[in-house]
Amino acid sequence: MTKPLFITFEGPEGAGKTSVLEILISELKPLLGDELITTREPGGNPISEAIRAILQPAEDNGMDERTEALLYTAARRQHLVEIILPALKSGKVVISDRYIDSSLAYQGGGRGLGVDNIWQINQFATEGLMPDLTIYFDVPPELGLARVKANRQGKIDRLDKENLSFHQTVRQTYLQLQHDFSDRIKIIDAAQSLDQVVADTRELLLKTLKTRKG
Amino acid sequence: MTKPLFITFEGPEGAGKTSVLEILISELKPLLGDELITTREPGGNPISEAIRAILQPAEDNGMDERTEALLYTAARRQHLVEIILPALKSGKVVISDRYIDSSLAYQGGGRGLGVDNIWQINQFATEGLMPDLTIYFDVPPELGLARVKANRQGKIDRLDKENLSFHQTVRQTYLQLQHDFSDRIKIIDAAQSLDQVVADTRELLLKTLKTRKG
Repeated sequence: MTKPLFITFEGPEGAGKTSVLEILISELKPLLGDELITTREPGGNPISEAIRAILQPAEDNGMDERTEALLYTAARRQHLVEIILPALKSGKVVISDRYIDSSLAYQGGGRGLGVDNIWQINQFATEGLMPDLTIYFDVPPELGLARVKANRQGKIDRLDKENLSFHQTVRQTYLQLQHDFSDRIKIIDAAQSLDQVVADTRELLLKTLKTRKG
Repeated sequence: MTKPLFITFEGPEGAGKTSVLEILISELKPLLGDELITTREPGGNPISEAIRAILQPAEDNGMDERTEALLYTAARRQHLVEIILPALKSGKVVISDRYIDSSLAYQGGGRGLGVDNIWQINQFATEGLMPDLTIYFDVPPELGLARVKANRQGKIDRLDKENLSFHQTVRQTYLQLQHDFSDRIKIIDAAQSLDQVVADTRELLLKTLKTRKG
């Protein structure tokens, strides 16, 4: 059996990570075939999707921030058990759009619940399973939000300027995590052109995939 | 403002705690009026009820035990924030049917996830808010299950004899918690007649309510 690999993509909206992922999957799929599993939280399984529905209501439902953090963690657990773990157990390459670092940055940093607290509840959920490689797409919030706004051709309440300090804190937390776990988390300058971001990401992915054959 | 009091009722199905609670509430309500708030997890708030719906599906949905524990904890958090904390902040007496000890006994003990692990994720959810008094209704599983079966006039799959060891572990965990936190958790012999169980519980409640005036 080949060596399993667990790779995660992280970063804010507007960093372009989903576009980059789509381009690179189309390149990697012919090389890896069924060996490559791509997924994104919450993962499409019914339980995690039902949890996501509670997290994204049509109207504000007064959800407490700790409730939110626990629900994201529950959805992560089920996604891990149903999708990620079975693929890794059969030696596959799993690329997931978002994983534990999203909660650390958004709930731990952005919401101010504390990275250590969010780390702890996620250790319960993941039983310590961390990615072999995490690619963090770094972009200043002003640029990321402008891209999102341009893509959607209009104002977006939830991501507007009132929340700029939230997004700045999320970025600072991601940067701190990258600093603290620099062996695992590699940073990509996502303020560059899409072509350059794809090129940088391709280089990182191919380097990591080579270790799989070794 | 009067001193707030937070009281929880704990124990397995078939211990009679809900019947006891109903009888004693009808006695306490004329004495305490609006000062008395009774509730039960998940608490009737929309978010916790939506979480409970995921936890109790019509058919087995392959939910992982850690996902289950995180969802119970999320529902507890929202119930705490919406119902319990506002009542305590205005100096009321809150009696809740189930709280943290249920998770410690069922998920920590019964499901084998570890009391310490479940304690930790619940500390995140409760920010350390523990009851002033917990009344644990103790009953041997064989008797409790027989009562449930009699009440429902038929077989109950989920609680049948195949799971007796699960219920035995839940009881042992409750007993250990009572031993470790004997100042907070008081035990009632719920194998006695309902009249006697009510009398014992009334005595405990009135004793605790007296401390509120002092």
